[in-house]
Amino acid sequence: MKLVIAIVHDEDAKALLEDLTKAEFRVTKLASTGGFLKAGNTTVLVGVEDERVEEVKAIISENCQSRKEMVTSPAPVSGTTGVFIPYPVEVTVGGATIFVVDVAEHLKL
Amino acid sequence: MKLVIAIVHDEDAKALLEDLTKAEFRVTKLASTGGFLKAGNTTVLVGVEDERVEEVKAIISENCQSRKEMVTSPAPVSGTTGVFIPYPVEVTVGGATIFVVDVAEHLKL
Amino acid sequence: MKLVIAIVHDEDAKALLEDLTKAEFRVTKLASTGGFLKAGNTTVLVGVEDERVEEVKAIISENCQSRKEMVTSPAPVSGTTGVFIPYPVEVTVGGATIFVVDVAEHLKL
Ligand code: NI
Ligand code: NI
Ligand code: NI
Repeated sequence: MKLVIAIVHDEDAKALLEDLTKAEFRVTKLASTGGFLKAGNTTVLVGVEDERVEEVKAIISENCQSRKEMVTSPAPVSGTTGVFIPYPVEVTVGGATIFVVDVAEHLKL
Repeated sequence: MKLVIAIVHDEDAKALLEDLTKAEFRVTKLASTGGFLKAGNTTVLVGVEDERVEEVKAIISENCQSRKEMVTSPAPVSGTTGVFIPYPVEVTVGGATIFVVDVAEHLKL
Repeated sequence: MKLVIAIVHDEDAKALLEDLTKAEFRVTKLASTGGFLKAGNTTVLVGVEDERVEEVKAIISENCQSRKEMVTSPAPVSGTTGVFIPYPVEVTVGGATIFVVDVAEHLKL
């Protein structure tokens, strides 16, 4: 038995939980944030038999790839003229950090 | 040393934490939810010496048994006549998923 | 690879996360509480190579020492005369509980 602890971005969490649940994994979602400046992460716990760990990793990988997206800056910066010009910014979204931990004992009540 | 990670239903969490604290276990409570459709779980962390793991499991077992309860449906379904009839529904409440993990090192500041 | 799980007091969490991030550790912060009466704890997850575990412990130790502080009682107790007298109370703040767990497998997407 393994416990998979995955820290994923909020925007990927819903689809990930759907796919894990569809594959009949038992999933628990914890609210979390990244460091003090990085908000918006979700920590997901999945208890899984050793032989299905690769499957869990594949589902996380499908749903949480790090990728670049163009977003329009939400708060346009004013130039010296005082005119506000919205502009596109490239940001990295997604990605995941996965820890697989051995479970010494597992119990389901 | 072991770390016990228990995912329990919210309705059982208060009594469980009381009993664990009464038995002098050090307990940390994390907010969590089940999968995307299952709200209302609490994740409990208990750091425990190997020889008291069975005691922790017994206290969780006492407080978190899965059981059936009759509840009156909160939003009565209207029949074709437009009359609302509240009716009892059997639901499963409680239960727990427990992971016991080896602790390589433990420190208390 | 190790996963460090540290339960610290809220008042120490911000400085701790800043120092861990400055030292280029990847940190995830979970909201948590202590037992049913003890609110205000934060659980911090740090994934770390074995050779840097001591460094993580040192940074936690610097930021989370248990210490005594004098606080003025927020709700002054009335004496028998009905007069409210605020008085200083010594409380223990800070401290941390640290669990270091072996990571069987680690993946960064
Ligand atoms: Ni990320
Ligand atoms: Ni349940
Ligand atoms: Ni404390």
